[in-house]
Amino acid sequence: MDTPSDASAHTGIAAQDWAEACATPQYRAAVVDLLGALAYGELAAFERLAEDAKLAPTLADKAELAAMASAEFGHFAQLRDRLAEIDADPTESMRPFATALDEFHRQTAPSDWLEGLVKAYVGDSIASDFYREVAARLDSDTRSLVLRVLDDTGHASFAVEKVRAAIEADPRVGGRLALWARRLMGEALSQAQRVVAERDALSNMLVGGVAEGFDLAEVGKMFSRITEAHTKRMAALGLAA
Amino acid sequence: MDTPSDASAHTGIAAQDWAEACATPQYRAAVVDLLGALAYGELAAFERLAEDAKLAPTLADKAELAAMASAEFGHFAQLRDRLAEIDADPTESMRPFATALDEFHRQTAPSDWLEGLVKAYVGDSIASDFYREVAARLDSDTRSLVLRVLDDTGHASFAVEKVRAAIEADPRVGGRLALWARRLMGEALSQAQRVVAERDALSNMLVGGVAEGFDLAEVGKMFSRITEAHTKRMAALGLAA
Repeated sequence: MDTPSDASAHTGIAAQDWAEACATPQYRAAVVDLLGALAYGELAAFERLAEDAKLAPTLADKAELAAMASAEFGHFAQLRDRLAEIDADPTESMRPFATALDEFHRQTAPSDWLEGLVKAYVGDSIASDFYREVAARLDSDTRSLVLRVLDDTGHASFAVEKVRAAIEADPRVGGRLALWARRLMGEALSQAQRVVAERDALSNMLVGGVAEGFDLAEVGKMFSRITEAHTKRMAALGLAA
Repeated sequence: MDTPSDASAHTGIAAQDWAEACATPQYRAAVVDLLGALAYGELAAFERLAEDAKLAPTLADKAELAAMASAEFGHFAQLRDRLAEIDADPTESMRPFATALDEFHRQTAPSDWLEGLVKAYVGDSIASDFYREVAARLDSDTRSLVLRVLDDTGHASFAVEKVRAAIEADPRVGGRLALWARRLMGEALSQAQRVVAERDALSNMLVGGVAEGFDLAEVGKMFSRITEAHTKRMAALGLAA
């Protein structure tokens, strides 16, 4: 849903559709990067959630995590199909982002069910924030794909409910999970910064349009907004972030 | 699709819909068992395929296995929803089959990508054969669910193609995979026999109707038919089974 401030941002590329916008080679490259990064992110999320499903204490919980994993796969499939549609090789487009995302997941393998839930919730939320930040800068066709993929899978409330109940039952759990959430955010930011530093076209688009040049301060501001939203969510969950 | 011989079998329960058939308590129990077993089987298959996706040599292969896993999850969700619809607790209905299926997967964890593909293909095929065997004995509503879930996900050909190519490239691979396929079938049969021995209502239905009593010879024949079909498939794949 566009807020009034988003609507006013629909100038330049954002006022164009893909057919028009893709005539700018740097914009085209940025979108291929973006879709590649999102696609690999969804595929990696699928793998991690499926892996975490093994930690589920009950069959119903396992099914819930498997459902989240399947939803991520559905998103992946949409992004991959779109890459093919715009004549980009999906595998090649994803490859530049594999190292950073694999490293993120390697560094943040949950050691139990609750850590897995917090990670799923945090990951989903950060991804949503990022999708929203970026959507306003995209041509109308790519924007509607990104917003469709962002479509809430309705599982965040599942994670929130389980984590809250666990903290109520044993408040010490809250301290441990707060540390965990902080580590997740730290790793996510450090990997994101790595990607931003390496992918010029993508970074340029993220900071407000291909014509305006790279502005690290602007990227920093975006990261700050995402971090702030994260902190508020963690507080609402009973975790001091 | 009903073959003429199937159609002639649509007498008794198979000529009834669920509303009529479920009035027989033993039939109802058998269907709850069947749907519970299938549902857990799909959920376990989801987990294993997602796990095997990690072994994929390329991103495209990984995506293909993730797609198979997601399709299994979709089947699981249909079976779970049906259990809830007929007032059976999905988790309780799946529980009796968890040990046998977990044990099967524990005993047959693939050690590489090709073993994973052969397992996915063999598992899918045996499951399809079993679904078909059982479908003819079900009331029309349950039958149409089982046939819908059986709906070919179209991924078998992916596995077949990759395995064939690997054997062509190195014929010794064929010998190793043939042994592997034999082990898979052996484990599947031994776990299936365990389930049959423990679940009377389900076994009675499988051997041809609740009224006729348990006939181990009939179960044995069903297993023989499934084993034969497996042997033919393996031969077609270039594996002497």
